[in-house]
Parts: sequence; C-alpha cells; structure tokens
Amino acid sequence: MPETVTAAMVVIGDEILSGRTKDKNVGHLADIMTAIGIDLKEVRIVPDEEDEIVAAVNALRARYAYVFTTGGIGPTHDDITADAISKAFGVPCDYDAKALAMMEAAYVKRGLEMTAARKRMARMPVGAKHIHNPISTAPGFQVENVYVMAGVPSIFQAMLDSVVPTLKTGQKLLSATVHCPYGEGAVAEALAAIQKAHPDTIIGSYPKSFEGKFSTDLVIRSRSPEALAAAEADVAAMVAGLGKAA
Amino acid sequence: MPETVTAAMVVIGDEILSGRTKDKNVGHLADIMTAIGIDLKEVRIVPDEEDEIVAAVNALRARYAYVFTTGGIGPTHDDITADAISKAFGVPCDYDAKALAMMEAAYVKRGLEMTAARKRMARMPVGAKHIHNPISTAPGFQVENVYVMAGVPSIFQAMLDSVVPTLKTGQKLLSATVHCPYGEGAVAEALAAIQKAHPDTIIGSYPKSFEGKFSTDLVIRSRSPEALAAAEADVAAMVAGLGKAA
Repeated sequence: MPETVTAAMVVIGDEILSGRTKDKNVGHLADIMTAIGIDLKEVRIVPDEEDEIVAAVNALRARYAYVFTTGGIGPTHDDITADAISKAFGVPCDYDAKALAMMEAAYVKRGLEMTAARKRMARMPVGAKHIHNPISTAPGFQVENVYVMAGVPSIFQAMLDSVVPTLKTGQKLLSATVHCPYGEGAVAEALAAIQKAHPDTIIGSYPKSFEGKFSTDLVIRSRSPEALAAAEADVAAMVAGLGKAA
Repeated sequence: MPETVTAAMVVIGDEILSGRTKDKNVGHLADIMTAIGIDLKEVRIVPDEEDEIVAAVNALRARYAYVFTTGGIGPTHDDITADAISKAFGVPCDYDAKALAMMEAAYVKRGLEMTAARKRMARMPVGAKHIHNPISTAPGFQVENVYVMAGVPSIFQAMLDSVVPTLKTGQKLLSATVHCPYGEGAVAEALAAIQKAHPDTIIGSYPKSFEGKFSTDLVIRSRSPEALAAAEADVAAMVAGLGKAA
C-alpha cells in the first residue's frame, strides 16, 4: 500500500459563521494538499471562542498528521488563537523575543509605533517555531503538528507556501474526469459496477445543474496510474455507450 | 436575555476536501441564518465515509438546536448520507413510499425510466419527514433536528427556502460596520477599550489587504439596537480621531 499522509483544518472566525466573510482558504488548502499528495480529511469552522478552538485543535491533532489553522492571529482583542493553541498544548503563551525584534525593526522602517496591541502579535505558545510571513511581518507559528496561520487569504497563502516544502508528503492521489452529458440517474448502476471492479480506485459522481439541464462529472481517483487508467477507460466506454443508446 | 437559537452544518463531500469543488453552501447558509436570527456556531466538512458522517452529526445534533447537512443524497454508490443519518439515529434506512410515488410520477412525465439507482434516492431513515425539492424531484428529509439536503447549490438553496419558514428563530443579531482606512494595529487598543465599555455587543475587527495597503472593517454586533448604536458611535468617533491624528 502506498503511504498516505493526512491533514485537517480549523478555520477560526465568527465572520465566516455569520456570512460576513466568504471563506477562501478551505478551497486553497484543499488544492495545495491534493497537489502535494496529502489527504485533507476534515475541516471545522469554529467561532472566536477559546474552548471551541481548543476542542477542535485537540480532536484533530490527535487524529491527523497535520492540522492547519487560519484566523485570529492579529493584534485586536478578538484575536485569541495564540492563547487557545497554548492552552491546547498546555504551555504558556508569551511574547516571542525573535518575533518582537523582527516586528520592531519592521515598524521602525515603516515609521509606525510598536504599540502594545502590535506587540500582541508576537505572543505565541512558548517553544513555537515561526512560520515566515513575507507580507505583514507578524509571523505565524508551528507547535508540533499544528500550523497556525493568518486568515487574510493573501497572507495565509504566503505562509502556506513557506510551510509546504517542510511537509512530509504521501504518494499523490491521481485523478481523471469523464464528463457525462446526462444526470446521475443514467449512470448510477453502471458506475457502481465499475467501482466494484476497480477496488484500487475511488469513483465519485458530481452532478451539475445548468439552466435546468443535468450533467455529471465522473471523477476517478487512485494512487496507481495503471488502476486509474483502467477504471477511466471503463467509465469512458460506459458513457459512450449511453450516447449510442440515447 | 433575548433568546438565541443555534445551528451547525455538516458538509459531506470528498470533492470539497480534494479542492475539486469549491463549496458555496456554507456562505449561503451563514447568510440566511444571520438574516433570520439563528446563530450558526460550527461547520464540519467531512469525507464520504459513513463513520465520519455519523460522528459529526451526532456530536452536533446534541449541542445545537438545528443541524443542516449538504451532499451525498443522489443516486450513485458514493451517496451514503441516508444510510449514515439512519445509523446516527439508530433507525432503519428504507424506501419511502411517498417519495417513490412522487419520483415515479415525475420520471414518467419526463419519459425516464425509474431505475434501481433512481429509486435509491427515495431511501431515507424510517419516519423521516420530506423536505420539498422543486428542482429535481428527489426530496431531502428531516429527522428530529437534522435537515438533510442536496449538495448542488441551486437545489440546496431551494430546499433551505422551504425549511426556513418552519424554523424557530431567535432575536436577530444586528450589525453595523465602520470602515477604518488603517491596519488593525492602529485601532487595537482603543477597540479593546470600547469592547469593554459595551459588554452587550460583540466587536470584531477584520483586516483587509489590497495592493499592499491594509485597512480594517470594524463590525459591531448586538441583539439590542440601543447597545449597537452606542458602540457604533464610539467606534466611529475613535476612527475619526485617528484621521485627525494622522
């Protein structure tokens, strides 16, 4: 069996749950994980409440190889992620000397004052490693298998870029898509039989509706290129057969 | 204290976790819940795996007034939500006579055969109530406080429209936004003081970055219009003061 590496995500933010902000980070993380061969297995979106963040992070870090969090690491009173992660790991949350020095230098350069609020962004669980932030100075941080990153998509993406090369990756899950111009009902039985005949693949069926007309994307996934190709051929032949029958 | 009504969501779908499909249902549900005065407190995105669906639904239905699920109710082999919900409630999953009759009539009308796969969409936990589906015939269903709906956004939205009038709603959480042309660091201390002075409000700070320039939306939320107006005035005055200082 090829090795699999798993991950989960915790999105921290009242603004996502209220609908005020539409999350863009789940889709980005999912794309990147798929591209590098890590299986994203679960996402939880939780409010800005310490106990909720602690519970989600502790549940997920025990089950999956990696946990990525987004949100709540800014300077304002509603940014409580550093405290929550510290609590999840049972370590103190304190100012990080290296982060303070970096931020101080950057603020001096930009002619901004290093206020107590800005200093707050240098707080992290004692012993945490930095995650580089090329955009806004304040670093993200890593504690064991938990990576704590910003919620602003451009900053999250930049932080993730610096994390990705350090991750252990599994064998990439390959995929192939066969488009079917009919609804799911037309292919369901044949597809179930093909799935049964190709146990080393995962075959998914994704209906789409456009102007009242249904079509379906049939997606075959496998870690084996040979298994993928064999199943894809069977799915394509089945869809072509439908066209002749119709 | 005004009454609050809570909700959670379970998004069921490998295609969301792989990045292939970008979820649109979380944001829509969040918008609708906020509009009608229900607090969406948690979202979990889980794979097409029965145990994962059961665990998420059972954890959330015990904690929140309502649980809404999307995905996995189509006719194909990877559509396992009806079985999972049945298992979560410990009831058998069987063909629903009313759903079968409705679907049969609709298929006859459209000149389509009622195949075994299509019939599969009429399976639901015994005793479930229907959720009307004006788009594609196969109904969603409700068991106690769990509402099981389609993953295709147009169908999900139509099903949710028919559910909303039946929900018990809380007092609406009102909100006001004050735009601040500076980054979070510039307002953090003053904002924390305003939050402290207005305990009946929740003040959130949402940084934005556009072409390297930061600005911040300051969002005040409250169930009391008076408390909201008072806090909004203080936030606006604070931001105006910054403009004079700069």
